[in-house]
Amino acid sequence: MTARNHVIAIGNALVDVITTAPPEFLSDRGIAKGSMRLIPADEAETLYAAMGPGREISGGSAANTVAGMAALGARPAFVGRVADDQLGRVFAHDIRAAGVAYATAASAGGDPTGRCLIVVTPDGERTMNTYLGACQELSEADLDADSVAAAEILYLEGYLWDPPAPRAAMRKAIEVARANSRKVAFTLSDVFCVEGHRADFQDLLRSHVDLVFGNENEVRALYQTASIDEAMAELAKHSCIAVVTRSSEGAVVLENGNRHVVPGEKVDRVVDSTGAGDMFAGGFMAGLVEGRSLPDCARIGCITAAEVISHYGARPEADLKALVKAKLR
Amino acid sequence: MTARNHVIAIGNALVDVITTAPPEFLSDRGIAKGSMRLIPADEAETLYAAMGPGREISGGSAANTVAGMAALGARPAFVGRVADDQLGRVFAHDIRAAGVAYATAASAGGDPTGRCLIVVTPDGERTMNTYLGACQELSEADLDADSVAAAEILYLEGYLWDPPAPRAAMRKAIEVARANSRKVAFTLSDVFCVEGHRADFQDLLRSHVDLVFGNENEVRALYQTASIDEAMAELAKHSCIAVVTRSSEGAVVLENGNRHVVPGEKVDRVVDSTGAGDMFAGGFMAGLVEGRSLPDCARIGCITAAEVISHYGARPEADLKALVKAKLR
Repeated sequence: MTARNHVIAIGNALVDVITTAPPEFLSDRGIAKGSMRLIPADEAETLYAAMGPGREISGGSAANTVAGMAALGARPAFVGRVADDQLGRVFAHDIRAAGVAYATAASAGGDPTGRCLIVVTPDGERTMNTYLGACQELSEADLDADSVAAAEILYLEGYLWDPPAPRAAMRKAIEVARANSRKVAFTLSDVFCVEGHRADFQDLLRSHVDLVFGNENEVRALYQTASIDEAMAELAKHSCIAVVTRSSEGAVVLENGNRHVVPGEKVDRVVDSTGAGDMFAGGFMAGLVEGRSLPDCARIGCITAAEVISHYGARPEADLKALVKAKLR
Repeated sequence: MTARNHVIAIGNALVDVITTAPPEFLSDRGIAKGSMRLIPADEAETLYAAMGPGREISGGSAANTVAGMAALGARPAFVGRVADDQLGRVFAHDIRAAGVAYATAASAGGDPTGRCLIVVTPDGERTMNTYLGACQELSEADLDADSVAAAEILYLEGYLWDPPAPRAAMRKAIEVARANSRKVAFTLSDVFCVEGHRADFQDLLRSHVDLVFGNENEVRALYQTASIDEAMAELAKHSCIAVVTRSSEGAVVLENGNRHVVPGEKVDRVVDSTGAGDMFAGGFMAGLVEGRSLPDCARIGCITAAEVISHYGARPEADLKALVKAKLR
């Protein structure tokens, strides 16, 4: 990580285990379709045993985002903890093979590499059951302050705000980035993250973050408003740029009193919606480091998100650069 | 494995690591496109490091075959060795989740679970680099003679003829099956297997096997003939049923002086040809245990092979039963 990176992301280092199942598989177990929840090791074992054959594909929200940025030509780095085991080696191989600098040491002797058990229903919706494992062992000691100081954008994943040691690492990284006049970007990640850390997240947006990503449900949960308009009015009070994604409807960018509404990208068939938000953020920030306009950044986000939901797995498979070139006007 | 199984298969227990690459990735490394070769641990490491991001999907030739049979409603069992590691648990989970009885104990302290590094070129052709690992540690002690004696068909994978301990286990299984008047089926697996064990394979066909599967290259290699007709004339001298697969052209079944020519199944786009032969054998034997005619068995094989090459991974994803019902006349 000697060359200067456009983005340094801190997030969960997860391998996704993807299976398909009818909706009853979830309802029979009292799991809300479309949700994300954290599960302990024993529940991960039980659920895995009940799941159909899987395919293992590297995931992790911020890791997906930077894999997408690399595919678009940016130079990203990733910080996140795996264990010294086979799934950890799969994660490390895949993120490096995607063109992302990755230097976090694997932990030995603790929990195994984290994984996300993903059930995809026939409508393409994904329901995520995450066993964090080694992810939670990330700490301040894993941060290379010089890398954070040098990168244009520090990107943080709301999912990782939950465990205390990684949260401390992220707070430290924010300090370093701001002391070096770098941009700080943050994703709200999920309604359950917002509900668990509402005060922290509001404080981050008020005074520590330059760019925030969230979908409509997440921003409504953040301000506990019934309508999305009220939530956006709250968001607009902050000085940070706020990007609200709206699934197939595209996105709205709020910036300094302006409001850019960007249409979604048509998708023939949603195979697996995993990674849509991650890849939107990746496309958006790839545009940002190229110096594009905010509406163009959002359009690139919509185009790259559309690619990733057209196949299983949350990492891009198509040539994203060519795709964006062809579709962006 | 108390219930009587239709088929008991012995084969390599592998997890496939699938990546896409241009043909130059192979030619630059002197790897013949479309080939299968065995590689040692250090070469597996080097090649993996050079490969792009992967997706891990359970594989293994005979294991794929029985997974296909289970999807078609048959009751198969599988015998093959993994290590007690994460990839071994992935293999065991996936084959059981596919509906296959699997009771082979995982080895501890030896080589890790075997894997097949598969490079898929844009034409959909797969080039396989197999690190056998724990597969080779299968031995006679892993055989449950009662299960072999009870199953209608014993199915053996030519790939596993190479390492000595599994070969001895397969010879033992043949003895048990024949002593109990069970059918023995065998796949030639690959030209390299045929070339390494030509005398053994010819002997198997002459006097130990009731049903053999091979593609045109494999049967030509078996009899060292330039033309497929000469090779088929040699095959026809044996009393066993011989099924010669011809890629998109379908298959020919030779049986007791008869010759059934069966057309192939149209595929819109070959995504990944991995598992075509495996799934053909699975479809064929699923037909056989249902008491169907040989041409119908071959047609089912063509239909199921067409499904598996239309996506990444060598295990079926579609509802094979419905597919066969719709397509078989």
